[in-house]
Amino acid sequence: MNTSTPEDLTRSAVLAAHGVIKPLIHETPVFTSSSLSASLSNGNNMYFKAENLQKGGAFKFRGASYSLSCLAEELLAKGVCTHSSGNHAGALALAARERGVDCFVVMPSNSAKPKIDAVRAYGAEITFCEPNARARASTLAAVQERTGATFIPPYDAVNTILGQGTAFLELVNQVPEQLAAIVAPVGGGGLLAGTALAARGTGVRVFGAEPAGAADCALGLKEGRRIEDVDSKTIADGLRTPVGVLNFPIIQGNVEAVIVVSDEEIVEAMRLLWERLKLVIEPSGATAFAAVRNPAFQKLDIKGPIGIILSGGNIDLSMPLPWAK
Amino acid sequence: MNTSTPEDLTRSAVLAAHGVIKPLIHETPVFTSSSLSASLSNGNNMYFKAENLQKGGAFKFRGASYSLSCLAEELLAKGVCTHSSGNHAGALALAARERGVDCFVVMPSNSAKPKIDAVRAYGAEITFCEPNARARASTLAAVQERTGATFIPPYDAVNTILGQGTAFLELVNQVPEQLAAIVAPVGGGGLLAGTALAARGTGVRVFGAEPAGAADCALGLKEGRRIEDVDSKTIADGLRTPVGVLNFPIIQGNVEAVIVVSDEEIVEAMRLLWERLKLVIEPSGATAFAAVRNPAFQKLDIKGPIGIILSGGNIDLSMPLPWAK
Repeated sequence: MNTSTPEDLTRSAVLAAHGVIKPLIHETPVFTSSSLSASLSNGNNMYFKAENLQKGGAFKFRGASYSLSCLAEELLAKGVCTHSSGNHAGALALAARERGVDCFVVMPSNSAKPKIDAVRAYGAEITFCEPNARARASTLAAVQERTGATFIPPYDAVNTILGQGTAFLELVNQVPEQLAAIVAPVGGGGLLAGTALAARGTGVRVFGAEPAGAADCALGLKEGRRIEDVDSKTIADGLRTPVGVLNFPIIQGNVEAVIVVSDEEIVEAMRLLWERLKLVIEPSGATAFAAVRNPAFQKLDIKGPIGIILSGGNIDLSMPLPWAK
Repeated sequence: MNTSTPEDLTRSAVLAAHGVIKPLIHETPVFTSSSLSASLSNGNNMYFKAENLQKGGAFKFRGASYSLSCLAEELLAKGVCTHSSGNHAGALALAARERGVDCFVVMPSNSAKPKIDAVRAYGAEITFCEPNARARASTLAAVQERTGATFIPPYDAVNTILGQGTAFLELVNQVPEQLAAIVAPVGGGGLLAGTALAARGTGVRVFGAEPAGAADCALGLKEGRRIEDVDSKTIADGLRTPVGVLNFPIIQGNVEAVIVVSDEEIVEAMRLLWERLKLVIEPSGATAFAAVRNPAFQKLDIKGPIGIILSGGNIDLSMPLPWAK
């Protein structure tokens, strides 16, 4: 049984989570680029944590693996379930398959075909629903009723947050110098909250990166309360969700600022990453780099190297590249 | 002074070259994919050596770095030069810049703009020439006359071959099991010959991969003599050159077969690598994987894991992706 509570949201809990999932996940490589660093007005060294090279193509596999690891065998025997149109569904399906556990995924009927194909290829059972929040919830409830599977939330859960924070722990061990700052994208806030917990007491300043078309977290920090509704007018499809209930206060207490970037900045950052790092990065995955290039961040005049989490690489390659549109 | 001779083309010379260039190059990561392995009729484990993540975006940096390392200081002081429309020019320019040495590159006037931009960004001086072999040679001679720079050939040179062989040495150290085979693409043959030398006595079977539109090496092996002319009707722009004088006999004596693949197979392999490995790989870089997927290779029924060199990732991202054409 998963007995984690919000009181477990600590740096040492992230360290413990890392110990548990280390044999299950990839230690993703870290990349540098002298030409990209030279292109910044402050010329900071940048260390890119390539979570697009994580299993399933995104950091989400970390949280999914840790969530599974925390479930008792009698729960695992009944399987796990979630609703997601994106990377969490694929990550949970893959983590469940590797663990030999059944996985049930509720997906909106308008989900992108490559995402549906990936979830199916990982052996999960898909139930389609109307593309709205109520249909998702009721369909998931029906799946749980039928199967007894345990719901593994995509971001608003203790173990998910702890798992996502492990990318930062790897990064600081892989980098040969002390980071001055770390920048991670924020959608539901699993990655950013986990990163903030992992960075506590390390002296590394923590920043979020959010698309202007779904900037509920930045607005929430300004207004001092969580914004529950969010526009989703951004190319960064992984960041269209409102920040979670558990996630928001962690971000409020531990993140210095959330930098808001336009879709144009995201696409430009994405193209630079493809060209210079030779990595396939999805728009959400390029958002933290877009934030570092943004004048609002450069104006902070941070001295020293900056860690950047490239959160994922799942993009429909049958479509024209976004800069060619 | 570079005193290497063909007698120096040995495995131990590759080992020595690796010792010299290790601090200069990236040890590129190695990737696996259970879904790609499962897609092979023989289901072999595959280990992908990601030389697209090498400095300059291709394995060519290895040979360029070693060639520079073998030059005496009085020669380095006058700079280095080459003619190339592709990855060798960028690699030499970057290696020269890191060494603080002048670099002069002769490029055909119809070279792709991103390649020209890369060479220029690495600080080399470019002289354009008509796009034919005679103009290349005469323009290079004029540049040498003017500057006294030493010519660093792209593939038909001892130190180039030794440098390229170091990718294989890294790979076998990075892989947790004994490789049954290694597959590398062949254009001029620097990478394949270097790999063959490095694999001597290791029990690893060596194969080449060549596009049907420029299959001079496969034809040469069949006819027992080097073919000097080559068609260049292939999307794999890095493999359009005829195999070199030094390279051919090494391949003849140490490579079991060169597998010939169509452009369609190359494009399909490339797309799979982008989708599953999340790596930007150029057509030439996907050719070895295309060969492993080819029935002629699968029919060999090799038992055990296969190493595959993904040789580079320099592609013009402003163009439509080849599978979308």
